[in-house]
This record gives sequence, C-alpha cells and structure tokens, in this order.
Amino acid sequence: MRVQTLYYKNHVLYVLDQLQLPRYKKYIVCRDWRQVAQVIKKMNIRGAPAIGVAAAFGIALAAREQNTSDRQRFLDQIYIASKALVSTRPTAVNLAWAIKRMLDYLETIKSRDIKGIKTFLEKKAQQVLAEDVLINKKMAVQGEKLIPGNARVLTHCNAGALATAGYGTALGVIREAHKRGKKITVWVDETRPYLQGARLTAWELKEEKIPFYLISDNMAGHFISRGEVDCIITGADRVAANGDTANKIGTYSLAVLAKENCIPFYIAAPCSTIDLHIKSGSEIPIEERSAEEVTCIAGKRIAPPGIKVKNPAFDVTPHKYITAIITEKGIVKKPYLKNLKKLKKSL
Amino acid sequence: MRVQTLYYKNHVLYVLDQLQLPRYKKYIVCRDWRQVAQVIKKMNIRGAPAIGVAAAFGIALAAREQNTSDRQRFLDQIYIASKALVSTRPTAVNLAWAIKRMLDYLETIKSRDIKGIKTFLEKKAQQVLAEDVLINKKMAVQGEKLIPGNARVLTHCNAGALATAGYGTALGVIREAHKRGKKITVWVDETRPYLQGARLTAWELKEEKIPFYLISDNMAGHFISRGEVDCIITGADRVAANGDTANKIGTYSLAVLAKENCIPFYIAAPCSTIDLHIKSGSEIPIEERSAEEVTCIAGKRIAPPGIKVKNPAFDVTPHKYITAIITEKGIVKKPYLKNLKKLKKSL
Repeated sequence: MRVQTLYYKNHVLYVLDQLQLPRYKKYIVCRDWRQVAQVIKKMNIRGAPAIGVAAAFGIALAAREQNTSDRQRFLDQIYIASKALVSTRPTAVNLAWAIKRMLDYLETIKSRDIKGIKTFLEKKAQQVLAEDVLINKKMAVQGEKLIPGNARVLTHCNAGALATAGYGTALGVIREAHKRGKKITVWVDETRPYLQGARLTAWELKEEKIPFYLISDNMAGHFISRGEVDCIITGADRVAANGDTANKIGTYSLAVLAKENCIPFYIAAPCSTIDLHIKSGSEIPIEERSAEEVTCIAGKRIAPPGIKVKNPAFDVTPHKYITAIITEKGIVKKPYLKNLKKLKKSL
Repeated sequence: MRVQTLYYKNHVLYVLDQLQLPRYKKYIVCRDWRQVAQVIKKMNIRGAPAIGVAAAFGIALAAREQNTSDRQRFLDQIYIASKALVSTRPTAVNLAWAIKRMLDYLETIKSRDIKGIKTFLEKKAQQVLAEDVLINKKMAVQGEKLIPGNARVLTHCNAGALATAGYGTALGVIREAHKRGKKITVWVDETRPYLQGARLTAWELKEEKIPFYLISDNMAGHFISRGEVDCIITGADRVAANGDTANKIGTYSLAVLAKENCIPFYIAAPCSTIDLHIKSGSEIPIEERSAEEVTCIAGKRIAPPGIKVKNPAFDVTPHKYITAIITEKGIVKKPYLKNLKKLKKSL
C-alpha cells in the first residue's frame, strides 16, 4: 500500500479521509484530541484497529496541546479526553483497549516532568501504531495457511490496510496468500450503507492488483449457493469470551449462508479485539447510526423523505457459525470459551 | 394507490417512469412497440406482472402502428415485434406468458379485417391489464390469512402496485392485511442495486400510510435473528414445476435466514408466474445486468473505475425454503411438484 491510513509528524496527526475515497486521497490534519474524536465519530477513519491507533494519538495530543504547568490539571485533561475518545464509537473494543494502554502507560510515567510525559506519550502512540502493522503481518502469516490455492474468497466491509495502521486483518490474510502465489480471487461485498467494500476494499485490491469482483451485499448468497465461493473471511469489532463476534452489519447473514452451504467462515482479528469481560454477543453494544447513511448515497437522496429507518452499524455472529478465529498468536478453534481464555493468558 | 403503473389511452401507452421515482412522477409515452421494448429493457417499468401487461400493449401497438393492407405482412410484423419483446428480459416468465396470450388470441381473429384485428388486440391488452389487478386482489385475500395480527413482515424488492397493473403481489397481501386492521409493520429491504425497496416500496407504503422501516439488505439477518421479523413475503419472476423460485437477487439469502431462524418464508405470485415447462430452478435463465448499476448510484460513481463487477438481477430459492406459494387460486404448499401441477390443471 502506497497510502498510509494515518501518520504522526511534528506533533500533528494526519488521517486519510476515507469518506473521500476512492475519489480523492486527502488527509485531515488533527492538532488536538477533539479533532481526533471528531474524525472517529464521523468515520473519516474507521476499522476497529485503526480507530484504536487514532485514539492513542488522541491521548498524546491531549497531553501535547496543554500549556499548564499544574500536573494534576494536566493529567485531568488527559483523563477527560480519554473518556470522550472512548465514547465516540461503542462497538469496537480496540478503541477502549488502545486508550487503556495509553493510560496504563501514563500511570507509570506520571511522576516525570510534563514535557517528558508529552514526549513519552507520543512515543507510546507511535509504538501502538508500529505494533499494529506488525500484528497484522503475523496474523496474515497465520491465516494464509487456511486459504487454499486458487481460492475464491469472499470478504465483507473493509478489513484491510485502511481499517488498521497497515496491511489489514482479513485483507491482510488475503494479501499474504496472494503474495505467496496462491492465485486468489476475491468477492467484494459493497457493504451498505457506508460502502466500505465498494469504496475501500475495491480500491485496495485494485492498487495491489489482486483480482476481484465487486457485488452488492445481497448477491453473496447467490454465488455461495452456486459453489463459487470457497471461504469467507471478515474482520471483527469485538469478540466475546464465548467467541460470539460483532462485526460490520451483514456479517451474520454471511455466516449463516456459509453454514448452509458448507464452506468455512473465518474471523481475522488481533488479540486486542477479544474482550473476555463480555460473556456473549448479546452483551456487545451495537451502535445505531444516522438515517441519512441509508437514505442518501454520495449526497443524493434515494428514498422518500420523512420515513423511518434503522441503521445498526454492526451485528453479532454467534460462535457456532465461526470455523476459526485468526489472531497474531495463532488460529483459535472451538471450544472458544476455553481456547480464547488460553490465548489471552499466553499474552 | 393514486398513481397508475401504466395505462392505455387513444392508442398510446403511458408508462410511469420508475427510474425517476420517488423524486418525480413522470409518464413515458409509447406510441410504438419498440418504445415499449425499450422501457422494459431499461427498467423504466419492472416487476414480472407489470412487464407482462406492458408487453401485451406492445403487441397491440405493433398492430396499430402499421399502415399496410397486406395481411401477411401485417401479421409478420406482429410476430417480429413479439419475438423482440419476449427477449427484452429473460427471467420473468409473465412476459412470455402475456405475449403468448396475445398471439393465441390473434390466431383466433386473424381472418378478420386488419382494422378489426387492431381494435381487438387493443381490447385484449386492456383485458390483460384489468385481469392482472383482479388477480392481485384475489391473491391478497388468499394471502392475508397467513399474516397474523401485529405482524412484522419483511419484504424485498418491490412486489407492489408498481410491479403489477395495480395492487401488487407480496405488497398486495400486506396491503390487504393492513386494510383489515391487522396492525402490520413492514421491514423494507432497500434492494440494491436498483433500489426498488428504498425508491418504490417505501414510496408505496408511505402513500398508503402503512408503517415501515427502511433498512439496507444486509441488515435483514440482524433483525430476523433478534426475533423482530415474524414472516417474509416476496414476489416471484418464475416458479419452476418443483417450486424453485427465481426472484430479485437477495431473495435466496432471506429464505435461508428465515429457515435458520424458524420463521415462514412466503412467495406471492399469480398462476402465470408458474412455469411447468421448467423442471427446477437450475433451468431458469438468470439475467446479468450492466456493471454500472452496481458502481453508480443516482448517477454518482461509488467504486474505483476499471474494476470487474457481477450483477445478476435474480437468484433462485430452492423449494425446500418456501413455506407456501400464494396464488389467486389458493395457497400452494409442499409437495410443490404435485400441488403446482394440480393448480395449473384447475385453470
């Protein structure tokens, strides 16, 4: 990938504006944490790992932007920012995870001078970013073993480089299989309403010259039933202790279709997406987004005015439909309750 | 419904331009059969029963527009028109059925004078239109018995008044249940790529004041799995002898989701949609439409240029997923092979 999802330079966070893709490659300049909260909320940046990394820089900026010499006031401002950042999007646990990581680190350095804390927090956020890329590459190496040669792989939403600090989760696995010469063809769901598939995944695959077909979401079942899909792989926004997985709306339906047609359904997600505090999928908060995302496309209204709309951004796939969960530490299979616990303990 | 899908007046066919809905209510004026073929092909008019009725008027116009006094030449021109009309869209059998009906009738009147034939063909097409409305009303009365009070009914595409000469098939059933005071709420799939749900079904239901929620196609599974959908009802473009049903792309996935979550899945279609010449769904031709329908919405490009796209307009739902087929002659249940044959014999 020639384009970076986000990068930090001279105390400024640059966020690729994914609302403008694939038409324009423009970066939004974030000089304070409020701007970071805004780009996450508005989905200029999206994808569970990517918003986690962005939030880590949000914490660094919350420190950097202050002029106070009062340590308690300085720390309080960071805590206020962290609370606001964590509330921008409720479903992806990586957001809370990255912020907690920054705060845990802050705890260990908070007796230092303010200038030092600012610098250390920036370095820590840079580390969170670098690690994310590394984790994705490890995940890709683990996951590509599951992908047969000549496989026709279906993916939903964008779990690519754009959803992370680089390389991607589900798309990282596909990228790795392609790199190793496996002759992959990808089915790309357009992923309404935000069109992450049509706008982002199609763009990434085109850039990488990985063959693919774009389809609308409701076509997936047709091709699966005709034996034209060998496996499905998606990312995740939160995996519960029992393996139930929240991911982009439409994922559940794909998992059911996979089961009905006897093809494997894989999740690719870093260990930070696994949330053992959540027992099952029913406890995962599902974000409801604005009606306009459904009734307007690219600024054009497609439905009559004044109607009722539902727009859940995610759904939950019960663990029974998931063949395996690919992480950077290995591939997790059933029983998930036991094996996810074991995995997390090993970290 | 205050707006008519199509009507014929002073030897001219007026077709409501469904590509302009819900923004504009404009009629396209068809003065010859080529214009009728064009509006069917371009999907200005769509829906299996509606295009059948339009094609019937196409035959009437193919007769009306001729100045020849040579009977054989006159008839030959009608046969040429009928072949072109039948080839405009391959999946819906109603198109071929309506044209055959016109030609069968022509056979009985072809010894009359040319002027007489012209008038009789127009009258016959008017009869096909009037019958379609009547059939839909009968179907609605049959089908509404299956809909419980307070039901939350999911429908896909537009199988409403706009898909027929009036009243609708699947939406006719919903309309009837609403009329009888059953307090129905409808889940409306937006139905990519053509957006029949968002543009047409939402518009019809709003006009009739039937409560509904618009959702994108990939959200249906989420609400079904949460127990918020009591049944699914769709139209059909062709029903094979064994009950396998071709309908708008996405229907198959809904049927699988219904089965997985133990809710009934109904098809509402006139007997003319049942094609006993086709043994099973695998024999039904599936129309592939242009890539632009997927990559552009309302004239705006949503995907990178130069990519590969698949755009099957229909899929096939195997009969095992179908709880019942609602027709104007009664409700057909399994075994479909036997019961559909019995139904067709009774006509």
